[in-house]
Amino acid sequence: MADARQYFALPSPFPMKRGGRLIDAKLAYETWGALNGARDNAVLILTGLSPRAHAARNPVDDTPGWWEAIVGPGKALDTDRWFVICVNTLGSCKGSTGPASINPATGDVYRLDFPALTLEDAGNAAFELARGLGIARLAALVGCSMGGMAAMGAMVHHPGFTRAHLSVCSAPRAQPFAIAIRSLQREAIRLDPNWNGGRYDDARYPEAGMNIARKLGVITYRSALEWSGRFGRIRLDPERREDEPFGAEFEIESYLNAHARRFSRAFDPNCYLYLSRASDWFDLAEYGDGAADPEAAVRRALARLKLERALVIGVETDILFPLEQQQELAEGLSAGGVEVDFVGLDSPRGHDAFLVDTVRFGAAIGAFMRSL
Amino acid sequence: MADARQYFALPSPFPMKRGGRLIDAKLAYETWGALNGARDNAVLILTGLSPRAHAARNPVDDTPGWWEAIVGPGKALDTDRWFVICVNTLGSCKGSTGPASINPATGDVYRLDFPALTLEDAGNAAFELARGLGIARLAALVGCSMGGMAAMGAMVHHPGFTRAHLSVCSAPRAQPFAIAIRSLQREAIRLDPNWNGGRYDDARYPEAGMNIARKLGVITYRSALEWSGRFGRIRLDPERREDEPFGAEFEIESYLNAHARRFSRAFDPNCYLYLSRASDWFDLAEYGDGAADPEAAVRRALARLKLERALVIGVETDILFPLEQQQELAEGLSAGGVEVDFVGLDSPRGHDAFLVDTVRFGAAIGAFMRSL
Repeated sequence: MADARQYFALPSPFPMKRGGRLIDAKLAYETWGALNGARDNAVLILTGLSPRAHAARNPVDDTPGWWEAIVGPGKALDTDRWFVICVNTLGSCKGSTGPASINPATGDVYRLDFPALTLEDAGNAAFELARGLGIARLAALVGCSMGGMAAMGAMVHHPGFTRAHLSVCSAPRAQPFAIAIRSLQREAIRLDPNWNGGRYDDARYPEAGMNIARKLGVITYRSALEWSGRFGRIRLDPERREDEPFGAEFEIESYLNAHARRFSRAFDPNCYLYLSRASDWFDLAEYGDGAADPEAAVRRALARLKLERALVIGVETDILFPLEQQQELAEGLSAGGVEVDFVGLDSPRGHDAFLVDTVRFGAAIGAFMRSL
Repeated sequence: MADARQYFALPSPFPMKRGGRLIDAKLAYETWGALNGARDNAVLILTGLSPRAHAARNPVDDTPGWWEAIVGPGKALDTDRWFVICVNTLGSCKGSTGPASINPATGDVYRLDFPALTLEDAGNAAFELARGLGIARLAALVGCSMGGMAAMGAMVHHPGFTRAHLSVCSAPRAQPFAIAIRSLQREAIRLDPNWNGGRYDDARYPEAGMNIARKLGVITYRSALEWSGRFGRIRLDPERREDEPFGAEFEIESYLNAHARRFSRAFDPNCYLYLSRASDWFDLAEYGDGAADPEAAVRRALARLKLERALVIGVETDILFPLEQQQELAEGLSAGGVEVDFVGLDSPRGHDAFLVDTVRFGAAIGAFMRSL
């Protein structure tokens, strides 16, 4: 199957928030539907940490995408009406420039020479792409999880660039529980001797560290409630048990192993570290015009985005981006004069609900999009 | 300060549930108060995975214990009335026999030659200790966290051995979320090259793996709510930051580092692995007289314990032993004819609330004990 990715050359040099600049950097993206004559039907999707730009099948690449149930003709993000763009985040390894890319200054892979990456950089780069496609203003900006923080980081630098915003399982700032989880994921990678300060290759690859990081991710992306119903205490058949001391005995352990196996070699460890740290760094309160109280600062920053409409959606069982943070977003946007739809779902699927509980999410997103 | 531990020689050989037997094994314990003439005022405490027998100060060892606020004269477990015994669990490394002890058959440390350990073994051994102290029946058996599962494991083998039971932040069976967390903790230790199949020493010690395991423990013992209020996004002073790529920047990371540092060299890694796996294995439904449905099996098992009174106490923010599991215990005991007090606390302190939110726990435990 062909590759549907297109590439956009970022302005060069591309300045980064914390210093440094990227030369000849690019973003990978895919599109669905068509930009209308008024160029006012564009919907830009910013993803979570790891997804590709391939959100859904399209004529070039007919394989299912990561948000197949949401993006397409007649679906919640209806590509008969909207020109949908999904971008692989700056700093990733799925086509966009990141720590696994070649540094044109040296001809070698960037690795840890990649400049410090923030979600503001990722969001700003995505806005450059939209402008490059001839879009002066987005109809809607969708940000899922980490992408929701990147969206806010870009909107606060470019107020009014989108009419509507869909914040999906995201947060205005990283809180200590999420920081603790991500810090531990990074530690597992860094402590793997094969990480070697970022200088690994396929033969000496920090797979053990990536496995732990991914398993911890999956544990915190899902919910205890879902797993109790799905796995209970089901044991592996004896022939599937690991023949080593303290090896896997339960189905849930095998499930985590399978997730880790699929991910660990498919995502670059240094890119993971950069994007993970960028998530910890994000704090909308930085844009609060000096308000000392973080909650007040977040409200002030949200009041600056010049949005008309917003959908803020989250899930009660999400422990990584808890529903209180979506409530904070909704209330702050509303206080800033935005017409806000707030949807708190009782899905048992945890943070990943937006990826797997697409019936509930599709209904909420579709209703909002039809109302625009 | 002197050591207040006393030692009890277990019957030798001591048979283990999954096969194997221990020769010349012992339990470390401490006591407070005095056994009365009728020998009917004994309260036995079974701890969580890591605590010592030193629950509180006593004349021999005046240093504060791990449950100092709960155990003592006039406190919730009032040592003016009760003869309180706290036992270091079988399989631990704080005085009781475990994988870090000398195997009398070889003269070397057991390491992974220690027989498979279950919480039933740990609970049964503690009951042997009580009998050895001349106690035919306990007034109350207190089980905290893992110790609550060990308590059930012993009670189901020795129905009627205690009049009352206090189940503190525990569960009738390990559920997949908790199994996933513990499995990942064990994996971090096992993957540390210095673990070396259990053959480490002080010079080559799996400290990195133990650090990750402990941090993951602390993350799941506490709650996001508490940490948001306590740490927020407070950053470390520049001189306290780790001078390495992706090193700690936030106060929450430093807090986890401090916890890991205190624990990693103080608890034996093989003992940790054995007790962690024993927790995963525990399932009261095994004693359900063949009921196929696990919930029904748990109820049947709970109906066999021959208790008169029970206090079941848990916390809404506990993600490791969620309140639903304490509700299941309370309902099952009640359906079996036990007079049950159920207390679901809204403490923000997560699973560790029983250790740190001692005002709330002391009130509930004290009221129950005074009613006996």
